[in-house]
Amino acid sequence: MINRMSFFQDLLTSVFNRDTTDGLDADARSLEELCDALLSERGEVSGNRIANQILVRFDHSDDKDRLAFFQMLCTRFDIDTDKVQSAANTLAQNDTTQNLKHLLACVEPKRQELFRRLNRIPGATGMLVNMRASLLTHMKAHPELERIDIDFQKLFRAWFNRGFLVLREIDWQTPANILEKLIAYEAVHAITSWDALRRRLAPVDRKCFAFFHPSMLDEPLIFVEVALTQKVPKSIYEILSQRRDVSHPEATNTAVFYSISNCQAGLAGVSFGNFLIKQVAQELSIQLSGLKYFRTLSPVPGFMRWVDEALVDSNDDDLRGKLEVVKRISEKSISEPNDEEQQLLIETAARYLVLAKRGDSQPLDAVARFHLGNGAALDRILPQADVYEKGLKQSAGVMVSYLYDLDKVIENHEGYATNREVVCSTEVRSLMREGRKFPRRAG
Amino acid sequence: MINRMSFFQDLLTSVFNRDTTDGLDADARSLEELCDALLSERGEVSGNRIANQILVRFDHSDDKDRLAFFQMLCTRFDIDTDKVQSAANTLAQNDTTQNLKHLLACVEPKRQELFRRLNRIPGATGMLVNMRASLLTHMKAHPELERIDIDFQKLFRAWFNRGFLVLREIDWQTPANILEKLIAYEAVHAITSWDALRRRLAPVDRKCFAFFHPSMLDEPLIFVEVALTQKVPKSIYEILSQRRDVSHPEATNTAVFYSISNCQAGLAGVSFGNFLIKQVAQELSIQLSGLKYFRTLSPVPGFMRWVDEALVDSNDDDLRGKLEVVKRISEKSISEPNDEEQQLLIETAARYLVLAKRGDSQPLDAVARFHLGNGAALDRILPQADVYEKGLKQSAGVMVSYLYDLDKVIENHEGYATNREVVCSTEVRSLMREGRKFPRRAG
Amino acid sequence: MINRMSFFQDLLTSVFNRDTTDGLDADARSLEELCDALLSERGEVSGNRIANQILVRFDHSDDKDRLAFFQMLCTRFDIDTDKVQSAANTLAQNDTTQNLKHLLACVEPKRQELFRRLNRIPGATGMLVNMRASLLTHMKAHPELERIDIDFQKLFRAWFNRGFLVLREIDWQTPANILEKLIAYEAVHAITSWDALRRRLAPVDRKCFAFFHPSMLDEPLIFVEVALTQKVPKSIYEILSQRRDVSHPEATNTAVFYSISNCQAGLAGVSFGNFLIKQVAQELSIQLSGLKYFRTLSPVPGFMRWVDEALVDSNDDDLRGKLEVVKRISEKSISEPNDEEQQLLIETAARYLVLAKRGDSQPLDAVARFHLGNGAALDRILPQADVYEKGLKQSAGVMVSYLYDLDKVIENHEGYATNREVVCSTEVRSLMREGRKFPRRAG
Amino acid sequence: MINRMSFFQDLLTSVFNRDTTDGLDADARSLEELCDALLSERGEVSGNRIANQILVRFDHSDDKDRLAFFQMLCTRFDIDTDKVQSAANTLAQNDTTQNLKHLLACVEPKRQELFRRLNRIPGATGMLVNMRASLLTHMKAHPELERIDIDFQKLFRAWFNRGFLVLREIDWQTPANILEKLIAYEAVHAITSWDALRRRLAPVDRKCFAFFHPSMLDEPLIFVEVALTQKVPKSIYEILSQRRDVSHPEATNTAVFYSISNCQAGLAGVSFGNFLIKQVAQELSIQLSGLKYFRTLSPVPGFMRWVDEALVDSNDDDLRGKLEVVKRISEKSISEPNDEEQQLLIETAARYLVLAKRGDSQPLDAVARFHLGNGAALDRILPQADVYEKGLKQSAGVMVSYLYDLDKVIENHEGYATNREVVCSTEVRSLMREGRKFPRRAG
Repeated sequence: MINRMSFFQDLLTSVFNRDTTDGLDADARSLEELCDALLSERGEVSGNRIANQILVRFDHSDDKDRLAFFQMLCTRFDIDTDKVQSAANTLAQNDTTQNLKHLLACVEPKRQELFRRLNRIPGATGMLVNMRASLLTHMKAHPELERIDIDFQKLFRAWFNRGFLVLREIDWQTPANILEKLIAYEAVHAITSWDALRRRLAPVDRKCFAFFHPSMLDEPLIFVEVALTQKVPKSIYEILSQRRDVSHPEATNTAVFYSISNCQAGLAGVSFGNFLIKQVAQELSIQLSGLKYFRTLSPVPGFMRWVDEALVDSNDDDLRGKLEVVKRISEKSISEPNDEEQQLLIETAARYLVLAKRGDSQPLDAVARFHLGNGAALDRILPQADVYEKGLKQSAGVMVSYLYDLDKVIENHEGYATNREVVCSTEVRSLMREGRKFPRRAG
Repeated sequence: MINRMSFFQDLLTSVFNRDTTDGLDADARSLEELCDALLSERGEVSGNRIANQILVRFDHSDDKDRLAFFQMLCTRFDIDTDKVQSAANTLAQNDTTQNLKHLLACVEPKRQELFRRLNRIPGATGMLVNMRASLLTHMKAHPELERIDIDFQKLFRAWFNRGFLVLREIDWQTPANILEKLIAYEAVHAITSWDALRRRLAPVDRKCFAFFHPSMLDEPLIFVEVALTQKVPKSIYEILSQRRDVSHPEATNTAVFYSISNCQAGLAGVSFGNFLIKQVAQELSIQLSGLKYFRTLSPVPGFMRWVDEALVDSNDDDLRGKLEVVKRISEKSISEPNDEEQQLLIETAARYLVLAKRGDSQPLDAVARFHLGNGAALDRILPQADVYEKGLKQSAGVMVSYLYDLDKVIENHEGYATNREVVCSTEVRSLMREGRKFPRRAG
Repeated sequence: MINRMSFFQDLLTSVFNRDTTDGLDADARSLEELCDALLSERGEVSGNRIANQILVRFDHSDDKDRLAFFQMLCTRFDIDTDKVQSAANTLAQNDTTQNLKHLLACVEPKRQELFRRLNRIPGATGMLVNMRASLLTHMKAHPELERIDIDFQKLFRAWFNRGFLVLREIDWQTPANILEKLIAYEAVHAITSWDALRRRLAPVDRKCFAFFHPSMLDEPLIFVEVALTQKVPKSIYEILSQRRDVSHPEATNTAVFYSISNCQAGLAGVSFGNFLIKQVAQELSIQLSGLKYFRTLSPVPGFMRWVDEALVDSNDDDLRGKLEVVKRISEKSISEPNDEEQQLLIETAARYLVLAKRGDSQPLDAVARFHLGNGAALDRILPQADVYEKGLKQSAGVMVSYLYDLDKVIENHEGYATNREVVCSTEVRSLMREGRKFPRRAG
Repeated sequence: MINRMSFFQDLLTSVFNRDTTDGLDADARSLEELCDALLSERGEVSGNRIANQILVRFDHSDDKDRLAFFQMLCTRFDIDTDKVQSAANTLAQNDTTQNLKHLLACVEPKRQELFRRLNRIPGATGMLVNMRASLLTHMKAHPELERIDIDFQKLFRAWFNRGFLVLREIDWQTPANILEKLIAYEAVHAITSWDALRRRLAPVDRKCFAFFHPSMLDEPLIFVEVALTQKVPKSIYEILSQRRDVSHPEATNTAVFYSISNCQAGLAGVSFGNFLIKQVAQELSIQLSGLKYFRTLSPVPGFMRWVDEALVDSNDDDLRGKLEVVKRISEKSISEPNDEEQQLLIETAARYLVLAKRGDSQPLDAVARFHLGNGAALDRILPQADVYEKGLKQSAGVMVSYLYDLDKVIENHEGYATNREVVCSTEVRSLMREGRKFPRRAG
């Protein structure tokens, strides 16, 4: 198909070609003075030089200096709560637009305007995302810094509004400088070399998609890896094996989302993941009309932690017996579980996924929360599906396939959002029902 | 369909190819109910369809319905000032992060989140800009609607942050759908046909630049037209004439900015103009190293209004005499002013530009405020420079050339920002000094 | 300067940004000497300057000088027929590779290598195409120059090999410098203004495609205009009318090719037209799966010429009667033909199209030859379909719709290529059969 | 700098997106029959399917079948020498255009038209280049196949005309599928991993450029690697070392071309190398105005072969003594040559480079022929410059720096082309002059 783009490509070119901020200049002023100067700038004429200076200095500074910078932001550019109180009182008495404006001016700390001005220069957005990543680290020891994060979150939610993000297919024609970031950011199943990366991108039955922001074009925000298959894969090995047969995409009916990785620590809490999966599913169904099923092959990251705790807490002998089998599988003291043991394993995992809850009635398992919240159904529980080191340790080798049925995703999502309903397949439901008594293992 | 071509092209392609929102569907709910539904959506699954529905309905509605929509936004999604007051009091007593968050949640009207959710879908940004344009119109008769504009301004200032805008050169290779918008939006010297447009874009001594936003790629936000010349043009006719000789760009030393037009009524107050001129000047000096002077050929839009008022108010006979000459030139009762009359004219214009002030001590003339505020100097006052209908009427044919000396622009700007200092050339200063007595015209 | 953006963009960028050859330098040598110099260059170091000089001089020269240049090419750089004869004799006696190479070297005139060397510089290809256009003009009075054309044809057939051409959709987003060439080159239904052009490109039920060569990117080689409709249009007015209703493309089933224009006189005989239609049909069926019929709305350029000749030659009274009616329609002495007259008209046209032949048994009508040769069928004969001046004059208002049935196009083509078989619809066949006796018109 | 591309990028997109030919269909005809069918096609309607079939079959066939295919091309589609003789005789008697055309038709074997028709489909050009690569291999054992190569050469010289090639900068933003080809094709200093590749492309003082053909956009034809330095490098180790300091490009004055690799065996004899170096030098001097020197760091591939032969042939004891020292260095029996030995080494190398000639009076050394023929000067002879295995073995560690002085390159080239003059620096000339007597080594 002929593509119809043109002029507009260029637009991005110029976004992209801008030099990134670099170079410390000889400005003798302190960071504090520079921030004052940037904020006092009325006409924005010299502002860009100052903004560049602040960003570069921060980038080059060590942890101690960064902390001092954040503390300065916290104290020097905070709101005046008395003024706020007075403005709120005035507004409550006389609800005029003018009084509202005045209150709003009072409740916005100056550092918010500082961040906006910093963001005027090319390359700044990415540097501010990194600044927040550093802030999040410092917040652990210095919770008072969270006041700054309120401002970051406000701005980032506007700047990274879903409408501004761009979905991009990633493949072996993608520039190497982007690809090396996939290697760096892959969080689920590590990519160990360029050859391993090639195996995930180049075969025609593999797909990868990422979201980008127009001002951070060489930095993926989040990406998902997809395998096109003819049936539900039984293990991650089937997907990642070097020796597998490549399928012709037209002959596949299932898209398996087997890895989703967030790339930017500084965008924590500004989530795009649920958009990504649905948009990729749509895109794939346009590209390949034969695709009927969209499902994941997902880890169960909290399973063994829960097993360990249950082993301590539970008085139910039958359950404890099962949990011990699971534990022994996880620790490889059972290296090749027999059918019965596998059955125990998946029954226990089903119990964990469906019944183990947090205080807010959502599932204990973070990955389950993510996909169920998106409107997926808990479809298959797969034993021996990830027998690599990490997989055994965190989930005794169990993986889960969540199903995105595009016709039911809204309904599922609403059921979950309203009643915390966990939608399960018949198969999983029967696992829950039939959960049989614990038998002894012979030897 | 995503195409698999070169990487960054594609980024924009997907920004651009998204279908613009269209199509009224059969959703029977009222706009109010749809807004409620959009806001109550927790997982954003069905939100896009609702957002689309709201935007399309608004777009198709008439003035009456739009007003009702705005009034609904105003009342239904406003803040609760009592809650705000209570939250402010709590914060003043106990300045914790938690209390601050609570206050901030209270002061943000729900319509702000509504706008953010509307903006999630492709094409929404431009539609929201148009929504604000409509709001600004309604605000004249319904000033209470300004509360909504506070939210628009907050969001637009974030979304249209200078760092996200893209500078694009416009020329005769630019797509026709962009070019027709130049014809539509040109606000200073009307473009009367495609041939006239071609004369402004195709010759090698003509340049044009515009700012775009990555989510509104077929809509310029602001554009500037530039003529490359060897000397200061004496009139707009020299620039626009069909019969002029085209210069070789390498042989020019002066870039004349002769027209700047804002394109989006809905972005009023979210200004980019000062950035544009400086960035274009930089871009041009990279492209053409021979360029030494960056200057404007600008209208003096408030001149005759001031003359008329001064004729009414002034008791100074000498001044009145001069003003009357200016008036007669403006009205063409003097059709070809002689040297002396021209001298009177430019002395009077200088007086207007330098001395006539608003309450805030800034010049009365809007164009003067813009360029002086940018750091330009008032360099030349040109009589008989725009003898077209509109030019005679608003400024007796006078135009001004403001000079952007890149070495002095910061200093000038700061002088203006701090002391409202109007930087003038020696020539203009001498006009002010020598302003001679008014002689009688023979006949 | 090479920019560093996305990879494939750039490829074309560098094709395109190359400066076109310009500038006469002070080289005092004659064109003849320059050609000698270019041919004697062994290492191609200084060749580009010489090539540029030759091309620019030719471009700036008048008809007389161009003729002299061609005559020089003809005599100075021709083959030596004695040498050829001797080489052919040697080869016939001893058919070695070496002898073959020698013969081939002898039969290639040096001007062919000259053209190849001229083509090394950016922009040369288009200039050589223009050079051939000039040659074709001179060949009319100087048939001996055809020897040069043999070389041009040989090279152009290689350079413009179908595999190198690029199909591009043209629309209202296309750069203005391309669009203005459509206005210039439209050969069938003149485009009278930019607004008229917009009406042919911007509506969603209009399409346009062109072939380009990678070395002549701002020059379309040939383009076709398409209307998407729900039924067979009855006249060109239905297509071109300003007041027509725009259809939604998804609701159409027919693509009507209503104008095909060759753009480069210098590429006469290096045909792409048949490729274009078929490739566009394929492209459209990918874009719009609802399209079922691909047909033309075509002129009948030779009809009235044949009528005039038949009126002179024919002795058949019945036929003469019919022809006279056709003639009177063409001359507007019958301004609104009644049903009977229209029937006579299309019967006569059918007779012309199916039976009137050239010496080689192909139809007399050039447009019929083109489409039938492509594998189309003669499907509809439409009276009163082009009642504009030119249409009445050349074909008494008759137009033809040829049908491209993608399933039959190969078979049709082969029938035509082998047996000169003219494939007709049932409707046309019945016109032929029923061709009734000529009745008298009342009044 | 803003780039100004647009529409035209797209053109290439569509070149690129074309599916490459694939898929064997069920056509039962033999290759011979398919070739006949393709040639007999008059209207090119079904031709593309046949062309695709032929190319794919050839691609999938083994050596034996390929040889059979070539032999078939040779015999079945050759010229008829008797006809040629008769046509040549006719022409010699009566030199008309018609007779010339007839002769030209007779001397062109039908396989040339076959190749042209094969090239009509997307992706064909690259497959035909591979076909010739296969032919060149078979020609060694079957010299009679050279007749086919005459046709390939004729076509490739037209298709790969310098004017059609595109220069592209290659860097770390280049798509991975192109980059992996650099790893595959690097012929001078092997690239052993992606990390090694990154070190050659990503640092700001490294550059790489390649020529592409618009119909083979994912296949570089030839590429050159460049190091930007402040002085003449003394060894390849300085260039390739992982630990070197990266220079700021603006602070460099020398571009060192340290590796040039042809990529397509099937384009042997269709040379672009000399164009590439000069065009890259031009491009670099535009990008970096501080660059003053353009030089190579080149291998001396034939040195030790010559030394070995000279050791056998020479009777000159002094020379033999020197040659033995060189030999011992090459074989590492002298592992760290002292100053005197190094001096001997470079004197001997100078002698080889300047004096050792082929039958045609050009230097024996292929690399010397290439650069001297391009107009470079033999500037420096560097001992111990490549002490990697291959470098010691082929040239006793000697490398040469050829200097491209853009002001002298035409003059040098002409001197070489006319008189086989080897232009040397003063330094090399003094090496030749001072070539001192051979001293004995102590120990």
